[in-house]
Amino acid sequence: MRIDIITVVPEILKSPFEASIMKRSIEKGLVEVHLHNLRDYVTDNYRQVDDYQYGGGAGMVMMIEPIDKCISKLRSERSYDEIIYMTPDGETLQQGTANYLSLKKNLIILCGHYKGVDQRVRDHFITKEISVGDYVLSGGELGALILCDAIIRLIPGVLGNETSALTDSFQDNLLAPPIYTRPAEYKGWKVPEVLTSGNFPKIEAWREEQAFLRTKERRPDLLDTDN
Amino acid sequence: MRIDIITVVPEILKSPFEASIMKRSIEKGLVEVHLHNLRDYVTDNYRQVDDYQYGGGAGMVMMIEPIDKCISKLRSERSYDEIIYMTPDGETLQQGTANYLSLKKNLIILCGHYKGVDQRVRDHFITKEISVGDYVLSGGELGALILCDAIIRLIPGVLGNETSALTDSFQDNLLAPPIYTRPAEYKGWKVPEVLTSGNFPKIEAWREEQAFLRTKERRPDLLDTDN
Repeated sequence: MRIDIITVVPEILKSPFEASIMKRSIEKGLVEVHLHNLRDYVTDNYRQVDDYQYGGGAGMVMMIEPIDKCISKLRSERSYDEIIYMTPDGETLQQGTANYLSLKKNLIILCGHYKGVDQRVRDHFITKEISVGDYVLSGGELGALILCDAIIRLIPGVLGNETSALTDSFQDNLLAPPIYTRPAEYKGWKVPEVLTSGNFPKIEAWREEQAFLRTKERRPDLLDTDN
Repeated sequence: MRIDIITVVPEILKSPFEASIMKRSIEKGLVEVHLHNLRDYVTDNYRQVDDYQYGGGAGMVMMIEPIDKCISKLRSERSYDEIIYMTPDGETLQQGTANYLSLKKNLIILCGHYKGVDQRVRDHFITKEISVGDYVLSGGELGALILCDAIIRLIPGVLGNETSALTDSFQDNLLAPPIYTRPAEYKGWKVPEVLTSGNFPKIEAWREEQAFLRTKERRPDLLDTDN
């Protein structure tokens, strides 16, 4: 998979790709991530990428021309499955979207910054608008990192043990059950007996029950299969 | 405001705090962010912070002792308003939570990694569990970055123009209206005439209508005021 990220602040995106599973997946050759600084696609001397809003109001707007130039250059080199714009009014990211995108070959992710991009960019270039949640961030860069991480960890070979991703929260519409590790007792707080019983069918039944109870208590909406 | 982040991979968190508004808010003295490497709170020579799950199963679990030591040290130095654990089965982050947390003085954010933390950490130390959305990430670090950004940008003095945050999506249960900047025409695609009319009451009315229409089309759930 190849991911091209277009941004006005590539510095933000640096360290997460140089650590942990995103780094390892790049080193293993499973993913290529390319950062594109929008300022490299500006022709004037000021490297201006944003301007005031038509109609007035606080906050700058990212201009269409540098974005057009960058996307057009990338599209002249290969075809892209999706050109994604990270924006709080996009489709809310769900595990299913991450699963879907993890099967794609080439993705462009455009990070909004300041007040966002000129609407004509969204109308004419973007194929998918994604929000990571119902809150506002100072830019789309952190959302792009979230999206990359959610996608990349699903690519076969990235996680050490593939069954690990399958037992995560959301993959079966249930939250994960409580987990424990050594020591069996810490300051008087004990691990539930069943987990140290060695009785695996019983452990499995306990986990299923706990996952169901936790989901019912915290997120009953996930149990509504009509969702 | 002071934010202490506890993690096993502090490298991930580095660049976002060295760029953009998070960097500027730190430089202005409006926020202090301290990263704590959990491995510094381990006594054995291997600096082991995780271990196998009781009851078997894929994925490692973060042990209680180093987390206890780190949190206890911080709490001995000052009192904390919230000790937050980033986890996909936590309360889903909403703009209101970011507003609430932006008024606090001292926060601890614990990043889960691998399969998560020993349940006893959650039972005995954590005061608030937050999820940034219904998807699984390889660790809580990116979620912590999202949370920090959502909170920090709301602190007075962080954004250049304070009205800018107030007109964002979600602050009034409406998505933001479309925005445009120069040029007025690009490749035949024009800015809506009303925005260049100079008639500000008409512009305001158009924006309100567009915000409502966009919300109705994309996120009718936000218009349901019982939510």
